[in-house]
Amino acid sequence: MKDQLTTSALDKEDVTALIIAAKKELGQTWEGIAASIGMSPVWTHSACMGMNAMSAEKAQALVLLLQLPPEAIAVLEESPTKVWSQTVPTDPCIYRLYEIVGVYGPTIKALIHEGFGDGIMSAIDFDMQVTRVPNEKGDRVKIEMSGKYLGYNAW
Amino acid sequence: MKDQLTTSALDKEDVTALIIAAKKELGQTWEGIAASIGMSPVWTHSACMGMNAMSAEKAQALVLLLQLPPEAIAVLEESPTKVWSQTVPTDPCIYRLYEIVGVYGPTIKALIHEGFGDGIMSAIDFDMQVTRVPNEKGDRVKIEMSGKYLGYNAW
Amino acid sequence: MKDQLTTSALDKEDVTALIIAAKKELGQTWEGIAASIGMSPVWTHSACMGMNAMSAEKAQALVLLLQLPPEAIAVLEESPTKVWSQTVPTDPCIYRLYEIVGVYGPTIKALIHEGFGDGIMSAIDFDMQVTRVPNEKGDRVKIEMSGKYLGYNAW
Amino acid sequence: MKDQLTTSALDKEDVTALIIAAKKELGQTWEGIAASIGMSPVWTHSACMGMNAMSAEKAQALVLLLQLPPEAIAVLEESPTKVWSQTVPTDPCIYRLYEIVGVYGPTIKALIHEGFGDGIMSAIDFDMQVTRVPNEKGDRVKIEMSGKYLGYNAW
Amino acid sequence: MKDQLTTSALDKEDVTALIIAAKKELGQTWEGIAASIGMSPVWTHSACMGMNAMSAEKAQALVLLLQLPPEAIAVLEESPTKVWSQTVPTDPCIYRLYEIVGVYGPTIKALIHEGFGDGIMSAIDFDMQVTRVPNEKGDRVKIEMSGKYLGYNAW
Amino acid sequence: MKDQLTTSALDKEDVTALIIAAKKELGQTWEGIAASIGMSPVWTHSACMGMNAMSAEKAQALVLLLQLPPEAIAVLEESPTKVWSQTVPTDPCIYRLYEIVGVYGPTIKALIHEGFGDGIMSAIDFDMQVTRVPNEKGDRVKIEMSGKYLGYNAW
Amino acid sequence: MKDQLTTSALDKEDVTALIIAAKKELGQTWEGIAASIGMSPVWTHSACMGMNAMSAEKAQALVLLLQLPPEAIAVLEESPTKVWSQTVPTDPCIYRLYEIVGVYGPTIKALIHEGFGDGIMSAIDFDMQVTRVPNEKGDRVKIEMSGKYLGYNAW
Amino acid sequence: MKDQLTTSALDKEDVTALIIAAKKELGQTWEGIAASIGMSPVWTHSACMGMNAMSAEKAQALVLLLQLPPEAIAVLEESPTKVWSQTVPTDPCIYRLYEIVGVYGPTIKALIHEGFGDGIMSAIDFDMQVTRVPNEKGDRVKIEMSGKYLGYNAW
Amino acid sequence: MKDQLTTSALDKEDVTALIIAAKKELGQTWEGIAASIGMSPVWTHSACMGMNAMSAEKAQALVLLLQLPPEAIAVLEESPTKVWSQTVPTDPCIYRLYEIVGVYGPTIKALIHEGFGDGIMSAIDFDMQVTRVPNEKGDRVKIEMSGKYLGYNAW
Amino acid sequence: MKDQLTTSALDKEDVTALIIAAKKELGQTWEGIAASIGMSPVWTHSACMGMNAMSAEKAQALVLLLQLPPEAIAVLEESPTKVWSQTVPTDPCIYRLYEIVGVYGPTIKALIHEGFGDGIMSAIDFDMQVTRVPNEKGDRVKIEMSGKYLGYNAW
Repeated sequence: MKDQLTTSALDKEDVTALIIAAKKELGQTWEGIAASIGMSPVWTHSACMGMNAMSAEKAQALVLLLQLPPEAIAVLEESPTKVWSQTVPTDPCIYRLYEIVGVYGPTIKALIHEGFGDGIMSAIDFDMQVTRVPNEKGDRVKIEMSGKYLGYNAW
Repeated sequence: MKDQLTTSALDKEDVTALIIAAKKELGQTWEGIAASIGMSPVWTHSACMGMNAMSAEKAQALVLLLQLPPEAIAVLEESPTKVWSQTVPTDPCIYRLYEIVGVYGPTIKALIHEGFGDGIMSAIDFDMQVTRVPNEKGDRVKIEMSGKYLGYNAW
Repeated sequence: MKDQLTTSALDKEDVTALIIAAKKELGQTWEGIAASIGMSPVWTHSACMGMNAMSAEKAQALVLLLQLPPEAIAVLEESPTKVWSQTVPTDPCIYRLYEIVGVYGPTIKALIHEGFGDGIMSAIDFDMQVTRVPNEKGDRVKIEMSGKYLGYNAW
Repeated sequence: MKDQLTTSALDKEDVTALIIAAKKELGQTWEGIAASIGMSPVWTHSACMGMNAMSAEKAQALVLLLQLPPEAIAVLEESPTKVWSQTVPTDPCIYRLYEIVGVYGPTIKALIHEGFGDGIMSAIDFDMQVTRVPNEKGDRVKIEMSGKYLGYNAW
Repeated sequence: MKDQLTTSALDKEDVTALIIAAKKELGQTWEGIAASIGMSPVWTHSACMGMNAMSAEKAQALVLLLQLPPEAIAVLEESPTKVWSQTVPTDPCIYRLYEIVGVYGPTIKALIHEGFGDGIMSAIDFDMQVTRVPNEKGDRVKIEMSGKYLGYNAW
Repeated sequence: MKDQLTTSALDKEDVTALIIAAKKELGQTWEGIAASIGMSPVWTHSACMGMNAMSAEKAQALVLLLQLPPEAIAVLEESPTKVWSQTVPTDPCIYRLYEIVGVYGPTIKALIHEGFGDGIMSAIDFDMQVTRVPNEKGDRVKIEMSGKYLGYNAW
Repeated sequence: MKDQLTTSALDKEDVTALIIAAKKELGQTWEGIAASIGMSPVWTHSACMGMNAMSAEKAQALVLLLQLPPEAIAVLEESPTKVWSQTVPTDPCIYRLYEIVGVYGPTIKALIHEGFGDGIMSAIDFDMQVTRVPNEKGDRVKIEMSGKYLGYNAW
Repeated sequence: MKDQLTTSALDKEDVTALIIAAKKELGQTWEGIAASIGMSPVWTHSACMGMNAMSAEKAQALVLLLQLPPEAIAVLEESPTKVWSQTVPTDPCIYRLYEIVGVYGPTIKALIHEGFGDGIMSAIDFDMQVTRVPNEKGDRVKIEMSGKYLGYNAW
Repeated sequence: MKDQLTTSALDKEDVTALIIAAKKELGQTWEGIAASIGMSPVWTHSACMGMNAMSAEKAQALVLLLQLPPEAIAVLEESPTKVWSQTVPTDPCIYRLYEIVGVYGPTIKALIHEGFGDGIMSAIDFDMQVTRVPNEKGDRVKIEMSGKYLGYNAW
Repeated sequence: MKDQLTTSALDKEDVTALIIAAKKELGQTWEGIAASIGMSPVWTHSACMGMNAMSAEKAQALVLLLQLPPEAIAVLEESPTKVWSQTVPTDPCIYRLYEIVGVYGPTIKALIHEGFGDGIMSAIDFDMQVTRVPNEKGDRVKIEMSGKYLGYNAW
């Protein structure tokens, strides 16, 4: 029954598959797609993976650029349910980030408390850049995160 | 038996407790301690927590600054065993970092592959800064990570 | 070594024990303590359990009210590390709350998205009340939560 | 074999898919659907997700409203098996609720014991509202839960 | 610090240890203790283990019977935090009960739904008896549970 | 390959689906089916769910009653592999049973040891009844379990 | 408080420590201790580890043999709570047994069903021997388990 | 794509399904199949389940006996990847074996060390028999394991 | 929808299946394939399993050798997401490696710190060989790993 | 009670602490200790950590070298129970080894099957070396493992 019911509609996973296929066919890069729709590469890739919602305008621009079916626009605008299945990620590139949180998490917390007060860095009002920094001992990956400081409420 | 055997020697946990107590008594900040020993606040806090090893010179400077017992120097120089007990951290300030890895981990991976090739950002040849960025809608926490790109070997 | 080092200072766990002992001895209630320091019972209990930080003023009022040692003031002001050890709580009173999140979590999410947009209810800029509502079929527990809506950033 | 056996009958998952598709096509909202069948948005969404059972009357009203096949009525009336697969939810909007239970669960428990006695708030004889509260510093999500107090039996 | 702070007061664990020691010394049985205080053996043992709260009257009777220190009365009256550390119990006698829930849980659920409607058996308004039933093929353990039926609310 | 190989034979899951479909179509209840084949409702439901094996005679009676295909008889006679996928069940009706084991498991164990000796209640030589007990404060669910006492062997 | 309360009584862990110390001092072996009290080595070691209960007679014989304090007798007679903390054992010698259950568990189950019917091998009415079997390619460890067949009840 | 690619070849799971179907059709038993190919029932069942590799000769004998397609021979010869998905098995017949490892694992280890030295019983150079032992109090299941003693290397 | 979308493109899993099928058909070995493309057996197998990325040149050589479809070349060049689903591997051959890490991990760490300083062996700039070493007491498996030493950064 | 009972005897943990303290005081290295007792550094460190048993001769040599109390000899000779508490190790130096098993485990397995047959590399009849290999792009850590090939038995 389900197959019949759901095949008439695209979901986020379908749109991600369409985007990846179109990106290959058109020889696009994430940098290039991001520039075309006027957004950052991190946010653009994340939204294409179904981990962020697009505004109508950005969704239309993406659909136009990648020649996706028009039904994809509404799907790209939907609020995603953010799910990851590996509590501890196994891919080495992602695990290193998990390790950094394990090793430096208490340090980041202490410095936020010292520098701002009792609160956190928001992961919602948040942005991130990933860039390449040339270095003669070997180029470096630079990750810059910025999140609004949120102080705990007392009531 | 054990109590007798181990009380004669400081371990990393003892030195961390001594540092925290001295920091309070002397009214120091992590920023201030870091400046005094000529290192960054992130690295300094991390080494004081027993999550990084100090050079002899930096250990001596710290011991002098905080008036720690001289035996602490050798302890600060030891290579730590980095252990965290919560697979998923519960403190909200640290959890948000875990969440960022869950949501944006695959994106960071994709952009590293696009920008560098098949490899990772090192978490060993690595540094990090945490700073406050004034913003009229509410100041922001900025976290900058930089790690050497390591390409996979083929043999 | 550690015992010597740490016995000179109170930590959050010690202060919680002192508060509970004093509360019993003085025949106080959480409602009463909260009223005395001019805060809500939920926040007051939470801060006494070491799960929230007090302002200097509130800490002084509490120490005065419960005749705690003056060193407790600084401890109550510290930013706590919020830790819970049971991923799934076993106490029936707390488990029911976990169950409500399991059953109604996706519903709350859907209604927030419908009512506000792509975002969340903050658990930081947040407050909560627990009250008794008389009811002839049996009185009811009312829990009211209020958190600032935080919309996802796009960049 | 199974495909043949089960395709002749709708299950709760199928009906949920039909509801979501019909809601989109008809441009309905959860608020609107709830009002149409004379129930609250929280309960209505939950029952549509297959996490609560409908009375015959409400099921008929919903089927009529959304033009679902008549077989859906009996499915909506069935007692669901409530299953959630993530012990710790990853979606940020749902995780924040889990975090609130972790941080404030013991506080809610203490206040129930102080205000009512040795017992719990029922999650069965229970209702909940989610509303938007305008606020000049940013609107707030208000969640109100009400459950019957159940005192422990002694025998 | 903590040792000093807490040694002045008995907690539930201490009272359990005092009860077990007194029970041995006085040659009492759980059946006997239960009869003496006019309660069932299941509830009596459970309250003595710190898993249920006693009324003032029952606590006094127990303290008198077992010659416990008078401070134990208030402790026995406190609402316990019910904690078990093994998600899957290893002791064979307890594991068999866990296995019964695994094998027959869905069956009990189906029969409750068929016999009562959409709801559950309360574990709060609940009582249990454990008795020996003579049988020529080997005596049998009989466990009788009775809990109030709680129907799900719709709102 | 697999589809071809296995579609020629019914397995326990198929037979369960056939039973549920037939039960609906014929307007049967578990009580009624159990009475028809001369067994208890608990055992009958459990065997229909594929969690117990039927004798040839009972399997034939069931197949006749529900007009199942004759191949179902052999399947109903097979020894099942009893599997449950949720270590901690999430459905509230089943979770309450798990909670009872957590809270009262050690009590049941203590009373078995006091009443019988060092041993357990068998979950194999075992039977159970679920019944409705009228009560003016609200009807109650009664669960009666009976298992053979098995004493530990010493050798 | 607790230390005072519990130091007056031996528990199973204490008696195990006393046995191990006495065994070393007296130069005994498990084989020898077992022979002296007229029981098998497997059961004797298990009871000495606190994983089985001794009869009064065997407990007395053991206490006499190893010159333990007389209070140890009652402790050895108590029904133990069998707890193991590693769900998957790490010690290679024990892990291999776990591996055998993983690899051959379904085979043992199939052969029991074929040879006996729908039931299990009891782990309660159970005994085991561990012996050395000389073999020119390297001696072998022989483990013989024997448990009563228990057939599932139907009711 | 995958379906096309893999349907041309049998894998171990397919061959297991073919064996079970053929065994039913031909009215064979595991005992009988084992005798026909000149191997033990434990090993034969295990190899048929895809948990051991057959020699070419045994695979041919089995294929001939059960009239399997000739492609099955190569599949039966392949080294299996031994996977079990339940860390703690739920089926009661298999769980009892897990329980035996939990209760008696340290005992088996102690007796191996006492009888052989510092080493283990191999689970690779290993064999096992399951037999029925008549007993007037109820027949018993006998499991005999034999594995080569492997002493730890020192270098 | 998805089936249509994805069947037009090969993914890493498809290519692995094609390689395994071709290897069988052509009677190739991993040693032989590796030699043909001028790489080591470990790396070649790993890349064929989709756990490493190939250069264009090596991918072309492999596709030519195994007569794979030309679309496979691009797939073999893609950076893989390295995922393993068993936290603790169950296959005995792989588990032994996990056990070696558990037993000797702290030793390898100590010797790296003694021999190199505070750092690690890279698992990215890494290579490995597996060879057979004849030995009259039984041939041995030799595994040689070599990874670049990476010293921790201080900043 | 326990403290009194166990303080009279050293256990493996005590001896490890004594070794580490003596090593520091005497300015020894693991390389040096190993050379002094005529064993490899890997095995020597492992035995000193209590993860392997020493022969009487090696234990005496070690005790003499490090001026340990003579009771340490018997402790060093005992068969250890090998326990590690982190299923997934967090220390980066050890995690990389875990990662290598995750990524290359199936490859090592495939090459062992191709090169030897259906069997494993023993982790018992096993040895390992860790050495430094100079390299102009950065020195490398070389880990060489050698374990006896064990072929699966068929019976």
